Parts: sequence; structure tokens; C-alpha cells
Amino acid sequence: MTRTAQAAVMGAFKTPIEVREYPVPAELGPGDVLVRVSMAGICGTDVHLHLGQLNVPLPLIMGHETVGVVERMGGAVDDWLGNPLAVGDRVSWTVGMPCGTCQYCRLHRLPSRCANRKAYGVNIPCDRPPHFLGGYAQVHHLRAGTAIFKLADDLRTESLIGAGCAIVTCVHGYERMPLRWAESVVIQGSGPVGLAALALAADAGARPIIVIGGPAERLERCRLFGADVIVDIDRIKDSGKRRGVVLEHTGGLGADVVVECVGHPAAVAEGWELCRDGGRYMVLGQYCDAGPTPLNPHLITRKEITVYGSYGSEPHHWARALEFLRVRADRFPFHELITHRFALDQVNEALDKVAKWETGKAVVLPNG
Amino acid sequence: MTRTAQAAVMGAFKTPIEVREYPVPAELGPGDVLVRVSMAGICGTDVHLHLGQLNVPLPLIMGHETVGVVERMGGAVDDWLGNPLAVGDRVSWTVGMPCGTCQYCRLHRLPSRCANRKAYGVNIPCDRPPHFLGGYAQVHHLRAGTAIFKLADDLRTESLIGAGCAIVTCVHGYERMPLRWAESVVIQGSGPVGLAALALAADAGARPIIVIGGPAERLERCRLFGADVIVDIDRIKDSGKRRGVVLEHTGGLGADVVVECVGHPAAVAEGWELCRDGGRYMVLGQYCDAGPTPLNPHLITRKEITVYGSYGSEPHHWARALEFLRVRADRFPFHELITHRFALDQVNEALDKVAKWETGKAVVLPNG
Amino acid sequence: MTRTAQAAVMGAFKTPIEVREYPVPAELGPGDVLVRVSMAGICGTDVHLHLGQLNVPLPLIMGHETVGVVERMGGAVDDWLGNPLAVGDRVSWTVGMPCGTCQYCRLHRLPSRCANRKAYGVNIPCDRPPHFLGGYAQVHHLRAGTAIFKLADDLRTESLIGAGCAIVTCVHGYERMPLRWAESVVIQGSGPVGLAALALAADAGARPIIVIGGPAERLERCRLFGADVIVDIDRIKDSGKRRGVVLEHTGGLGADVVVECVGHPAAVAEGWELCRDGGRYMVLGQYCDAGPTPLNPHLITRKEITVYGSYGSEPHHWARALEFLRVRADRFPFHELITHRFALDQVNEALDKVAKWETGKAVVLPNG
Amino acid sequence: MTRTAQAAVMGAFKTPIEVREYPVPAELGPGDVLVRVSMAGICGTDVHLHLGQLNVPLPLIMGHETVGVVERMGGAVDDWLGNPLAVGDRVSWTVGMPCGTCQYCRLHRLPSRCANRKAYGVNIPCDRPPHFLGGYAQVHHLRAGTAIFKLADDLRTESLIGAGCAIVTCVHGYERMPLRWAESVVIQGSGPVGLAALALAADAGARPIIVIGGPAERLERCRLFGADVIVDIDRIKDSGKRRGVVLEHTGGLGADVVVECVGHPAAVAEGWELCRDGGRYMVLGQYCDAGPTPLNPHLITRKEITVYGSYGSEPHHWARALEFLRVRADRFPFHELITHRFALDQVNEALDKVAKWETGKAVVLPNG
Repeated sequence: MTRTAQAAVMGAFKTPIEVREYPVPAELGPGDVLVRVSMAGICGTDVHLHLGQLNVPLPLIMGHETVGVVERMGGAVDDWLGNPLAVGDRVSWTVGMPCGTCQYCRLHRLPSRCANRKAYGVNIPCDRPPHFLGGYAQVHHLRAGTAIFKLADDLRTESLIGAGCAIVTCVHGYERMPLRWAESVVIQGSGPVGLAALALAADAGARPIIVIGGPAERLERCRLFGADVIVDIDRIKDSGKRRGVVLEHTGGLGADVVVECVGHPAAVAEGWELCRDGGRYMVLGQYCDAGPTPLNPHLITRKEITVYGSYGSEPHHWARALEFLRVRADRFPFHELITHRFALDQVNEALDKVAKWETGKAVVLPNG
Repeated sequence: MTRTAQAAVMGAFKTPIEVREYPVPAELGPGDVLVRVSMAGICGTDVHLHLGQLNVPLPLIMGHETVGVVERMGGAVDDWLGNPLAVGDRVSWTVGMPCGTCQYCRLHRLPSRCANRKAYGVNIPCDRPPHFLGGYAQVHHLRAGTAIFKLADDLRTESLIGAGCAIVTCVHGYERMPLRWAESVVIQGSGPVGLAALALAADAGARPIIVIGGPAERLERCRLFGADVIVDIDRIKDSGKRRGVVLEHTGGLGADVVVECVGHPAAVAEGWELCRDGGRYMVLGQYCDAGPTPLNPHLITRKEITVYGSYGSEPHHWARALEFLRVRADRFPFHELITHRFALDQVNEALDKVAKWETGKAVVLPNG
Repeated sequence: MTRTAQAAVMGAFKTPIEVREYPVPAELGPGDVLVRVSMAGICGTDVHLHLGQLNVPLPLIMGHETVGVVERMGGAVDDWLGNPLAVGDRVSWTVGMPCGTCQYCRLHRLPSRCANRKAYGVNIPCDRPPHFLGGYAQVHHLRAGTAIFKLADDLRTESLIGAGCAIVTCVHGYERMPLRWAESVVIQGSGPVGLAALALAADAGARPIIVIGGPAERLERCRLFGADVIVDIDRIKDSGKRRGVVLEHTGGLGADVVVECVGHPAAVAEGWELCRDGGRYMVLGQYCDAGPTPLNPHLITRKEITVYGSYGSEPHHWARALEFLRVRADRFPFHELITHRFALDQVNEALDKVAKWETGKAVVLPNG
Repeated sequence: MTRTAQAAVMGAFKTPIEVREYPVPAELGPGDVLVRVSMAGICGTDVHLHLGQLNVPLPLIMGHETVGVVERMGGAVDDWLGNPLAVGDRVSWTVGMPCGTCQYCRLHRLPSRCANRKAYGVNIPCDRPPHFLGGYAQVHHLRAGTAIFKLADDLRTESLIGAGCAIVTCVHGYERMPLRWAESVVIQGSGPVGLAALALAADAGARPIIVIGGPAERLERCRLFGADVIVDIDRIKDSGKRRGVVLEHTGGLGADVVVECVGHPAAVAEGWELCRDGGRYMVLGQYCDAGPTPLNPHLITRKEITVYGSYGSEPHHWARALEFLRVRADRFPFHELITHRFALDQVNEALDKVAKWETGKAVVLPNG
């Protein structure tokens, strides 16, 4: 049994992340699980965290998309679906831990808005034991009660990490705004969230699916994932012309559904124009607060559109996402999205490349 | 049989409306109905029309909230609910006439967004026969196919005109965004739309209902109509403090539902802050296009709120509104809202007073 | 501190319930609460339990509608809404305790169908400590994690017990099948569930509300609670004639919504005939399995009706019910429903009277 | 221009259908269209009509699934989607014509339940001009106002007739009970309705899809159309064992959704057992009234299932179905379902074969 393990620790914003050594918990409480990390995804949000754009506590081990292998357990532990866990099992987990007792958890059954939500790799500092509470580390401590999922043999680790947290964001989103059969859908954005939103729409029978984004390589991937129409923002720079393409493929009215997966506030104004009257719009990409943007509420009234928001995810979204990734791996090869693999001491370089959009999906392999 | 009749005609925007005489149709086509106008409501929208803020054809007889008495019919005519009409019947009607053949009428079943929608008193010019296609006139011609409603004896004309088109706007709105039982509701605005939105929420068991508006007389009316909490914007001028009142009465989280009935775009930004996470927001008052306003789409994502729009109405909304006004007249005395009555040649004075907010509900009595 | 306390114990089905003495738990675990029972409602289900019609473990202390006063606590305990509890607080609680880990609790978020559900007063035997796990006793032990509700000063104990578990059954039912504004509603049955279903429909603005039931005293109560039309099954014995009354008050088509609160399977066949085409039907009263009854599924297809089921309740339904009973006590005086009060050693007599429908709401006062 | 044309006329129930000659309308009213029939589908319902099991007027030209070519028009006519029609255009149409004025058409917006509904090939007798109001004839008269659809060049006549009216029945059904993403679905029945229900579920991403039916050839077709699991009722004759297969593929709980496409009432009782608690059930196949069957309403309460009904269809369902058949012809080759082609004078033989389940889809080619 290892006594210590390494982690990539963010001690301050905008300064290099350092590899530190912490003692591995010697004893596990009942229900706790210690996992050896196989692969940790680098999410675009990690770049924002490193820039200090979200107010998170330090020092922090980032990494909220992680797969590992069970190394030790605090007694018998079942996974979230009731499967008994054993040492050697390959697992993943939901990083968000709602308190279960606040008004959002209880009265409103909206745990994604829990007032006291903790999330591995995001807002639990690592200076105190059990230290290992993020994915950029050799081991990961999972508190009793964590929603752990034992991974099926035919679900690749790469599929899960390739899809990343974008996939559960979208599963949650479409739960809040269900697609109806055979609707026309515009996806604004071709990044990880856009690609996941596209895959789920294609799986649900949407048609046509129009993706507006870039750059070209990502759009090519979108076509493979089922996009019927591609609008390259590098080639069609005029918002009105982009709208023209959408109208051309939606009977001249606009799309039944538009899903915002861009993150830049200005996308919303364009998006409302892409909806047909009576259509639906989902704001899925505005995780960071970039402040107000000019929007015309008259459009909401006159066009009678409905605008949905969705934030974070719950364990049942993970359960559904894992099954989707397993069953539909041929149609939606998320495992092919991983382009760059980094060692624990290369995390700064990795974040840099991700920030510059030089990668597909980048991952950390903390144990080599 | 009268050969001519008078109408208040808007010949140009921002210039005085004139009383003109037009020939009354001598012969009616099958299904047409000629009505002698008893009372025509003056809607705030008429002020905007007169200012030229909506692009409507001229010359125009305004008036889209009208009650009259059947004077002649083109053969046997039934009202929209299948009741046979007779000369002498007191009637009202839905002013909007969708084409029934466009994609919105057919494929999307959204006739309020009909591409070719005509509306009495709004966008049918009066220079050609049958001329009388608005409420500010002694008679009103109703084309075959108009959704006419024979009024029950125990439904006061004043109740219907007192409520005005605001009531159907709200019936439609709550159809698109149904209230669930016992939700907390904030109504932004205490004008006609706000008052109707309040009455329907109270009738549906919402609690608490918080109205934010002014001036004091209108708020007093809101209290009579069932508002549990009143926030006077003339007294609480700070948006943050108004939010404080809402939080105080909604468990510290914000309201389950917020309904915008203000019309000023800036109300929307304040309104999103008044919703609890997971709550619902309805943009009901932005009928005129006042252009973009700063709004933060991040709130939609983070708070997971849903924003609804609703526009115009359909005949079944009128049917429901009329029944509501009839059955609930004691609890919601809309007939008491009428404060000013004008003759046909006083329409300019009437619009002026309405524009200055000097009236409750103002009405025109074209036949004295 | 009392060392022992009394309870009315059902040792065998269909045999007299006996008052027994059990030791009161000397020490409470963290989060446990010991309550002195003020009042315990006798539900019609208790009669079925005593007859052995549901397969519950024995010996059993029945009583699943209970109010008491906190006597001791295992450390600091909050109620379900986060209010800190103190000795002397008047409280009630949700009797059902889902396991929180089965597929229904987790994946399907349907804790009312928890595979391992325990319910105080229903399926937890009393032969082992802490013994006091039902309402027919001087004290009641509440396990850590029980959804306890501190009662507001202006919520009468009698209101809560007068409404009984019927009210949460209905809150849950209408959550699954929400009423829309101003729908016509038929309530089949005028017992506790029917009365609660009526009260909630009236509060939600339904109209007209037609109650079909009996006997006359109960129907009189229904009228006070807001029924617009009463159909006395003792006077109108013919199903077709009862349908005639419903058609007469619903435009000749049938009701928008019909809620079954009878419990006898034959009511369902009549009820489907009372729905208008496109209407909704809720089976709320079939808690016991009385086996198949002749039903015509062709009606479901041809009439395009939707049939809803609802079972048990969750803590948030209690929270909403308590608030409703508090705020609407004037309009719906559930506290007046209590007609009979019994001591602990009169439970057999009490159940006998309830079985014979000789009471309004009957209650047990275990501490005199 | 032909002066007369032939039709297969049902003069009496249970007696041979005869080919008769009627005069073709010489003049068409404005909006009328005369079509030369290319292909008319024989629906199982036609067998029931011929047996007199539905109370339809005689004499009757059956045939409610028809494709033809425009031969003459009463002036300019647009199809339902606004495309101008021309002589020579290949068209199909919605057979049901709601009155547009009854309470179901207007107030409840449920035209499929129109009180005065007329349907070509079903309930309009042919003894008076224009005679040709059903598909089993050389020409078909389409009244002004009929929802006609000009067929796209890449939509095969065989695809449309192969799918038949079953496809719109299912489009309507899933509109009333939308599938959510990735639900498990059981289809009861492998006939035309079952196959269409399967195709739409597969297109909407349902998984797994379990079809219970027979005989083996039909089940083989189901597998090609996307069924994940096949239950052959000829091989698994025990209802409990069939349930066992469903549980095995749905995590031991039952399916999220079960769709009844059998038509025999007894299927419903089995179907309720195949739903998981909280699941949904749709009664889609009970078009004929076969009377009551034993059903246990306690299951609705206890399992908290929701049961949906759907009847007939509207033009927008046809519009969606036609687009589906066109776009998804490769994945769901409905055109391959046609196995038997009959001349007009072979209709009796054709109905006989269909009644004996000896055919796949059988069609009439009235013009050879």
C-alpha cells in the first residue's frame, strides 16, 4: 500500500500548478473508497478556474472528469445503481455532492442548485486530509455517499473522458427541455457541449440538425456525429446570412429548437432570431458569468418562444450518459475525441494548449 | 335602417382623430353580422397606435375591445360556441382573424402568429367598404367567420370592457405557462395586464401573490383583487430593496413564478432576479418593440429558470375569459374599473388622458 | 422521565387490540426524536389493516396520522425544512421512509414506490425496541432522518388530523395530474379523500366542481367546502342518471377531469363515462387490491382520455399540505371534521365505529 | 375526359362487394379536386367495416389510404402546406374531415373527436354525387377543404401505402404521449400499428425496444425495423414468462413505456403488468369496441402508471408522417411491406386474405 501519492495542485490563480506529495489516507471511514486514477479529463472550465474567474478555494486539485480503479474500500460499498464494488473495479463518479437538506435539495427537488453543493475538483480545497479530492492526482478519495458508477466492460474509459462533463450537462438540459420527435434543431457551438448536444439530438431523431460553429476540424466531427447542415462561422461571418441558412433548411420560419452551447453571451441574441415563433431555446453554455448582453425581450413575447436554462447534473444523468456512451459507441465515437495525453507534471502545458484551443480532448494520465 | 353612421377615424399618426361618416353596408354577405356598438374600450395600445409606434395601415378606426348589439345578419349565423344569433343579441368578438392556411395556422397550430393575421381596430384600413371594422364607431361590421360570442344576461358589458383585451392576453399566457397549485407569484406591473394576471393567479390559488407597481390607487385595487403583498415602486425605488421584499415573502429564495406586465424592457432584468432557482418567468407585457436591454443569460443557465412568451389570443381564450368574468364578478369586480366615458367626438381627449395615466379604464360610447 | 409508556398493540388480525406497556428508549441515537403523542387519527386504512387485508407484520402499533410534542432529542435535530427543533415543539411527520438507495428512490426518483419502504404505523413491528413506531401510543419514536415538521402556532392540531393522510394523497395526486385553470371537475366519493380532493380543486379555481357521493351529511360538508353540484348516490341510484347530471353541468360533453376517491373498483367504469373526450381521469382511491373489474379499454382509445395513478406521498407533499391547512383554514375548516375522540383503551370501539361509517373523523388521545 | 368510372361498392355488410359504374362529376366546385387513384391500401379496419362491426352508412366505397394523380381541379387549389397543385401531381390526403364548428373542434381543439366528423372511405355513402368518396375506385373526388398533400418525388407511393393509416395513428399517439430520450419501450403487437409504433420509437432513440407479437415473419420484419428484443407469442404462450423477458431487459422493473397495438382487449391487462412503476401505457389498438375486459384499477394507483389514449389523426400528423417516410426510407423500408396487389374486381378476395392474415400489406390498383 502506497503511503503517499502525487497531485497537481493549484496553489494560486494564474500561477503555475505544482506537483505535490500528500499522504494517502491510511484508514477509510465506512463507505469511503480510494481510487487509483486512470485518466482525468481537462475541461475548459479548468482553464477558467485557473484564471480565477470562478471564486473557488485554494489550494485545489482540479479534475472533475475522472476514471479510476478501486484500490481500497471502507467496508462493503455499493455503487449508485446498487452493484457491489470490489477492489480492481473500474469506476467513475458524479463530482457534485448536494447537501440533501437545503430547500433546493428537499422542497424544490433541484439538487443541482443545492446551497451547499460540494464538487470534487472544483470547490473542495486539498490542504487537509484526505487531500485527494480532484482528478489531477494519482489517487482520488471518494467520500461515503459519493455517487460511484462501476463501469461496464464494454464502456471504454476513453468514451467517458472523451465526452467529459459536457455529456451530462446535455442529458440534464434535454431533461429540462425534452426534444419532441422529429424536431428541427440548431446547435450553436461545436465545442464539447455542442458536440454532445448534437449527439443526443441525433439519437433522439431530430431533423434537420444544423450546427453553427468552428473551426473546420470540429465541424467535420459534427458531420460525422450526425449534423445535417454545417454553418462555419469562419466562412459565414454575417449573423443575418447564418440566419438565412437556418431559414432555408427550416421551411423559412426558423428552427423548432435552438441550443446555445457557445458560452459567449452574444450568441443568445443571435439564437433567439434562429427560433421559429413558438419555438424553444436552451441556454446551456453560459456557465461563467460574463455579465449582461443586449437582448430584446419583445422577441420573447412576439415570437412566443420559451427559453430554458440548465445547470450541472445529478447522478441519474450520469447513469443515463454512461449507458448512452456504451450502447451508442459506434454511432458516436466519443473515444476518438482524445487528442492529447499529459503526465501529471505537464498540467500547465496541457491547460495552456486547451486555452489556445489547440487540442481536441486533452487528458491527464497521473500514473503514467 | 340607418344609411350612414359615424366613426372616429385616424387619418394620420400623431394628428387629431376625426369623426367621419361612412355608408353602412346595405347588403350583408352570408354569415356577416352588423352590430350597433354599445361600448368600446380604449386600450393603452391605441395610444401607441396613434403615435405610429406600430406600423398599421391608415385610415383606421381603432377599437379592439367592443360590445354591441346585433342589428342585421347575413342569413342565419351561429356564435362561436354554436348558439344561434338573433337581432337584438348583445355580443362581443375576437378581433384577431388568422388566415387558417399558413404554416403557423396549420402545421404549428399557433394562429396567434398567423403570417396574414387581420385584427379589427388594428390593421384593417377603413377607406373601403364595409368601412366599419373597429370599435370607435356607431356600428361594426363583422365578417363571416368572425368568432362572435353572445353574452350571457348575467355578464355585464362593463365587466368585459373593464377587463379589456388584457384578460385574454393573460388567459393565453397562463395557458402557455400554467400555474401549478399554491405557487408563489410576483406580478410586475399593476396596469390592466397586471391586474388581470393577478386576478387569474388568485383564482388559481396562487399564494402569496406579490404585486410590484404603482401608483397607489392601482395598488389599492390590486389588494382588493387578492394581492397578499404590495410593493409600491414610488416608495421603494431601489430594485435591490424590492427584491428584498420578495425574498422575505418567499422563504428567502425568490418566487416560483414571476409575470412581467410592465412593458418597459428594464423590468425583465429585475424580474429574473426575483425568480427562485428553477422558477418560471413570463414576458407578457413587451408587446411593443422597445429594442434590446441589458440582460444576463448566465442567470438563465445558473438559476435554471424557464422564460415564457405569449402573444395575442385565440377565440377559446375569449370563451374562457367571458365565463370567468361572469362567474367571478363578485370576487373580481372588473366592471368597477371603468372611470371615464367619452362620446365619439371626444376620442382625442380620451387618448390624451389615457396616455397621461389619468384614467382607470376609459371607454367610448359611440351611440351616446 | 417516564420509564414505560402505553400503546394499543394489534397482536393478531381481526382480534381485539390490547393496550401494552413497553419501555421507553432510555438513550436516543444522534438525530432520533422522542415525541409525546397529542392526537392520532384513525384512518379507514387502519380498519383494513385490522382485518388483515394488507400483509403487514405483527405485532403492530397502528396510527400514521399523528401530532405530538417533542420530549427528548438525540442531540441537535432540525426539522425537514431546516428549522431547529426544541423540546416542547409541536410536530408531525411523514410516516413513509424510503430507503434512498433502490432504483425507484434513485434512478426513477419515485420514492413513493421504494422497494424497501418502511412506514410508521403500517409495516414496522413493535416487538423490539424502540417499540413506539405508530401513533396509537403515548409516545412515538422518530428515527434519525424522519421528515419531521415543526407546526406553526396558527396551524391547529385538529386541522391536520382532521384532514389526515387524505390531504397528502391528494396533494401528490394533483402533482402527478395538475389541474389547469378553470377546469370542470367531478369528484367521485365524499369520504376523506374525496373531501380533500374537492378542497384542493376548489382552491385551484376548478369550476364547476361536481361531487358524487353520500351520505347526506358528508355531501352537506362538501357543499361547504365548495362543491357547485352535489349528486347523492342514495337518491340517484342509476349510473346513467348520474351521468346525465354531469353532462348537464359540463356543456353536454362530460367533465374535463374526474377524480376517483371511492375505493370500490366499479367506480372506475362509471368514471370513464363521466370524462369528456380528451379529458383526464385520476385513480386515487384504489389503495387496496380488490381485484379486476370489467373496464372497456376501447373508451381510452376512442375518448382519448388519460388515466393517472398516484400512491402515497413524499415529505414535500406534507410541507405543502401543512401550509395549505394553515393558510386556508377559514375556507376549508378541516378541524371541524373531528367528531369522535377515544382513549387508548377504546381503540377497538373506535375502529368498529369507523368501519360502520358512524363517525366523521375519529381520533385517539393516548395521553388523555 | 372520362364520363364514368368504376368503384368497388359495399352495398350490404357481409355480402360480396360489387364493382359499379358511377358518373364522374362533370363540374367541380371551387377548391374541389378530382384524382385518378394510383393505389389504395386495404386496412384491417376495412375487414371490420365489411363485417358490419362499425355502424357505417351504405352503400360505401371503402379505402382510406389512397394515393392518386390530380386529374382536374375546381380553379386554383393549394395543398395543405401551401404548395400550388397542378394536374398530374401525385397526391395523398387526410381522410378525416372535422366540421370545424363543434365544441371539440373549437373549444377543446380535439378535431379527432369532432361530433360531425366525415371520413372518406368510412362514413360517407356513395349513392349520391359526387359518388367517388373512397379509395377503392378509379377516381376519387376531394371536397374543397380536404387536406391534400402533394407528394415529394423521392417519396414512394409504396412507402406511404405500405405504412398505411397506422403511421399517422402512431404519430398522433406519440404526440399525446411523447417518448422521452432513451426510454425502454415494449410494443404489444407486430401488425401494421405495432410496426409503425416500433419504427417511430426507434427513430426517437428508445432502447431497448421489445416487441411482443407474431407470427415469425412479422417479427423478423420488426427486427429489421430496430427491435432489440423479440417475444414470439407462439413460442412463449405464458403471460408470466413474457413478463419475465421484459423484466430481464428492463433492470427487473418493467418498461418505461408500453404501447398497445394489438386490438384485443385482453392485451391491456398483460400490458399494465409490463410497465414499471411510474411508467406510461398507451392504448393505441382498441379502435373497435370489443366490450369490457377484466382490468385491475388498483394497479393504476399502486404502480402510479399513466394510461394514454389516442384516436384518429389530424392533417399535421400526415405532414409529419410523409416527411418521416421520405427521409427515413432506408432505415424503415415500409415500401417493402406490400405483398399483394389486387384489381378492383378482386376486392372480395383481397379482404378475405387480409382477414385471414395471409398477407403483408395488400393494395388495390383500381386502374390496373
